[in-house]
Amino acid sequence: MLGRLNHVAIAVPDLDAAINRYKNVLGATVSEPQHLPEHGVTVVFVEVANTKTELLYPLGDNSPIGAFLEKNPSGGMHHMCYEVDDILAARDKLIEDGVRVLGDGNPKTGAHGKPVLFLHPKDFDGTLIELEQV
Amino acid sequence: MLGRLNHVAIAVPDLDAAINRYKNVLGATVSEPQHLPEHGVTVVFVEVANTKTELLYPLGDNSPIGAFLEKNPSGGMHHMCYEVDDILAARDKLIEDGVRVLGDGNPKTGAHGKPVLFLHPKDFDGTLIELEQV
Repeated sequence: MLGRLNHVAIAVPDLDAAINRYKNVLGATVSEPQHLPEHGVTVVFVEVANTKTELLYPLGDNSPIGAFLEKNPSGGMHHMCYEVDDILAARDKLIEDGVRVLGDGNPKTGAHGKPVLFLHPKDFDGTLIELEQV
Repeated sequence: MLGRLNHVAIAVPDLDAAINRYKNVLGATVSEPQHLPEHGVTVVFVEVANTKTELLYPLGDNSPIGAFLEKNPSGGMHHMCYEVDDILAARDKLIEDGVRVLGDGNPKTGAHGKPVLFLHPKDFDGTLIELEQV
């Protein structure tokens, strides 16, 4: 079921400082910020050779990243996103195996404009897993 | 400086259950467990197309993963490992930029038998970063 690791997402409390660190200290290629009001986040992609690190910063009042940063004021790793070929087939198999799919179980449109689902972190060792259909 | 993302490490409270989930629920290829007493961990690698997810389980009494699991009983994302060409050059540049390198600043031998260093999570948005020379 699991394809490539599409990205690892990190919630950051200061986006400019994080961009500066990844660009100028770690020497990575960093995208322009993308504002995604429907997800309550501003996103910056750090390109590495084989995948991406996604920096997440709260946008708006009800951002899920705002809640995460209240619990983790320094920031922290937020989720891992794996690619799948068929997100509905993946979802049905996971539900059959007892995995909890977050929300109403229907894929939403993710930061890359593709269908995504999130799996309950309690079902994967405290790790929030996003699946993205590519 | 940053090369490939070598792996993302997840601390797990029940290694057999985690192996079962990654192998049989997510359908990934999973290595045999490797016991690394010098690091206080048992390691299992989940192979995905472009990188690895590393499952970490405590080994022995003073495991750093044991301490992590006390704070995070369900488990959780523990660190990200990026590859670098020259770990000493990377270290010197990072220290020059004010990043704190953990331990005595000298590379240790990591799970893949290669030199590794860890960077202070407070300097990278609450994310523990491992550098591995490949």
